[in-house]
Amino acid sequence: MTTPVVSDALCAFATALRWEDLPGSTRSAGRRTVANVVGLAVGASSHPAVEIAVAAVEDLGVRGGASLLGRPETLGPTWAPLVNGLAMHVEDFDDTHLRTVLHPGAPVVPAALAAAELSGASGQDLLTAVVAGVEVASRVGNALCPGHFDRAWHVTGTMGHLGAAVAAGVLLGLDPVRLRHALGLAATQASGHTQQLGAMAKSLHPGRAAADGVEAALLARAGATGPALPLEGPRGLAALMAPDPDLDEALRDLGEVWEVEANAFKPYACGIVSHPVIDAGVALRDLVADPDDVASVEVVVRPVVLEVMGVEEPAHGLASKFSVYHCFAVGLLDGGAGPAQYSDERATSPEVVALRRKVTAVTDPSMPKDACHVEVVLRDGTVLRHDVDHATGSVDRPMTDEQLRRKFELVVSPVLGEGTAALWRAASRVDELGSVAPLFTASQRRG
Amino acid sequence: MTTPVVSDALCAFATALRWEDLPGSTRSAGRRTVANVVGLAVGASSHPAVEIAVAAVEDLGVRGGASLLGRPETLGPTWAPLVNGLAMHVEDFDDTHLRTVLHPGAPVVPAALAAAELSGASGQDLLTAVVAGVEVASRVGNALCPGHFDRAWHVTGTMGHLGAAVAAGVLLGLDPVRLRHALGLAATQASGHTQQLGAMAKSLHPGRAAADGVEAALLARAGATGPALPLEGPRGLAALMAPDPDLDEALRDLGEVWEVEANAFKPYACGIVSHPVIDAGVALRDLVADPDDVASVEVVVRPVVLEVMGVEEPAHGLASKFSVYHCFAVGLLDGGAGPAQYSDERATSPEVVALRRKVTAVTDPSMPKDACHVEVVLRDGTVLRHDVDHATGSVDRPMTDEQLRRKFELVVSPVLGEGTAALWRAASRVDELGSVAPLFTASQRRG
Repeated sequence: MTTPVVSDALCAFATALRWEDLPGSTRSAGRRTVANVVGLAVGASSHPAVEIAVAAVEDLGVRGGASLLGRPETLGPTWAPLVNGLAMHVEDFDDTHLRTVLHPGAPVVPAALAAAELSGASGQDLLTAVVAGVEVASRVGNALCPGHFDRAWHVTGTMGHLGAAVAAGVLLGLDPVRLRHALGLAATQASGHTQQLGAMAKSLHPGRAAADGVEAALLARAGATGPALPLEGPRGLAALMAPDPDLDEALRDLGEVWEVEANAFKPYACGIVSHPVIDAGVALRDLVADPDDVASVEVVVRPVVLEVMGVEEPAHGLASKFSVYHCFAVGLLDGGAGPAQYSDERATSPEVVALRRKVTAVTDPSMPKDACHVEVVLRDGTVLRHDVDHATGSVDRPMTDEQLRRKFELVVSPVLGEGTAALWRAASRVDELGSVAPLFTASQRRG
Repeated sequence: MTTPVVSDALCAFATALRWEDLPGSTRSAGRRTVANVVGLAVGASSHPAVEIAVAAVEDLGVRGGASLLGRPETLGPTWAPLVNGLAMHVEDFDDTHLRTVLHPGAPVVPAALAAAELSGASGQDLLTAVVAGVEVASRVGNALCPGHFDRAWHVTGTMGHLGAAVAAGVLLGLDPVRLRHALGLAATQASGHTQQLGAMAKSLHPGRAAADGVEAALLARAGATGPALPLEGPRGLAALMAPDPDLDEALRDLGEVWEVEANAFKPYACGIVSHPVIDAGVALRDLVADPDDVASVEVVVRPVVLEVMGVEEPAHGLASKFSVYHCFAVGLLDGGAGPAQYSDERATSPEVVALRRKVTAVTDPSMPKDACHVEVVLRDGTVLRHDVDHATGSVDRPMTDEQLRRKFELVVSPVLGEGTAALWRAASRVDELGSVAPLFTASQRRG
């Protein structure tokens, strides 16, 4: 089961990684990963959860040299990633490494940004470190999942810790041994329960992972030590947090297959498992002249959809993100599912409530992750059937660069208006920046 | 298995607790818990691990209004508990709730101290909050252990998070619902792997728990939310972190039986499971004229002793804390096992190495936690046998107040010299203080 060199091999890989070594497709995936979450952080920069986190951190009196996206405060170098990571994830609109259901951007990118500010790193260094962090988080996730996910750990909180520590550690110039200590310090803090889905605490998971990753890197730089085998030891992360880890998976085709290229971007602002159902709602929209005509809807989905999205009567916006019934209803009624579809108003709107109550869900373990079948029966007996084979944003149907830019505009323009284009230029080509300072500058509201 | 009211019941209990309600024996247990770890923090205030943590935190630029024990720096209100908690635990000399192997002082007391500084609380408020935090941490530990401990979680890191959040939340004046949110925010960060035993990261566990507890309380005060059932939900702490939780245990005789009274204090600076063996070494000391006379030693111990204390050839001081062989040797050679017995020098001293190599360990699952049998065979064939029924510092043979004061002097006087008595007065009767400021003042080195 255990490969004793996993921790060391991953750290050697991460510290040796150079921008020049990255294939074009990997660079592009890194750019997309950064741009997507930068936009989301700016879009959510006045979200109530972000205001609460900033207020609590300001109670701590910890102003410092690390910047927030879309906000003027500067905080200490672990508090800024806490807030940025929370903001990136709070709308459930970020990105997904589909095999593990890890959302790598929100934990890894803020840690890299704070470490880049501390060390004066270039945009290329930043992007290289983000790729290293995403690789480690995704690959250890591959080793622990699906058991780790099935046991109900929130993979973004747990694996996010590892990715954040690696990205920050690389940017702070740790050698492979010190990076392994940082990885150990982060591993032993890795947590996050899916019981928190629907509570504000859930978006704290990537924020905390980012903050703990930076702290672990700083502690390791100062001389703090972790164990020799933090991931693979008999009392280490893999043994404690997964029923059937296979650590060979973490090293499979390392440096040849790039997990960051498997990072998918969410077209809809909710958990990815219900995206096929939203696609179906969107597709059926033009065929349903009046929602009152709908007699009943049956959606056939993978069992995990109901496990995490089974809320039948969501009472508020946050809860509606965990209702596959709500997801289908807004897809059909609104033709999409952005943050506006998961507002408190939309969650309790009579037309949405009426339609979602007509939806029943049937589970089928043989259904692929990115697929569903939907059957709508109209009052006149007409049956409308739609099968989604690969949801938008899945590996087999990735969002195009243009779709990603439009999503960025959707979330950023309400905050930055005309400044949106400048931020897109900085965020989508961060490797062209001499430092990360212009990115933060472009993210601020004017006047 | 689940009692859905556990989280709420514990938070209602904690917020309602008043100094006036505490029995005398509970007050005394609280005083002893505080005094013991205050002394340890001062004693370890220049330990390399503490210097590293302070250096890393200072890299973060987070000076603030929270004090360190035995050090002049003031840090932010989550960083001071991080350092204080680390310092209290770094010598493995603190305290133990024996049923769960939780060391409650190091996570709970620093969180309470920082929250008391933030809120200007009295010494009675502090001590009441410490009791509340220790009760919650120990009782949830009772519900999850032994399975949680056996699975190799470091209970001080995991349950410590809960106790720290409760102690801090009570002092910050949270109502029961906000305290439950704080408990949820802390629960989803609860971690700590026993793979870290022997590495510096291990003492970070209670420090991180204390820091996360304060942060959770501040976030909840600012309005952040956790789930309704953070401990008992199907994807919550108990389900994820224990194979066989029994949450009824958390509420059994709540407010009638006080778990803080079961908190035992370590006479030796290492994990509690090898204390019976050290007692045996101390007891046999006068019977062995010359250690060279020893041909062989057999110790019969509970299996857990070898699982966590099985290091046969510890190469440095920290590793020697996890060697039952070393523990026996210093007990016999030095008549005790304080920090000096776990120094790098003592770990590699030829006489210790020679004696510990003669020790073999046999496990017996029927052996009680606080007992052992030891047989020493001398070169002339003489057999010396010693049975320990209840180790010093166990529930059945607790350290007396006088023993605790002597332990305090042992660790504090090298740092404070003549100031030791004044700190003992403040630390052992903290309920007589109008605020915690005099405690921190008395902990500082003079001149």
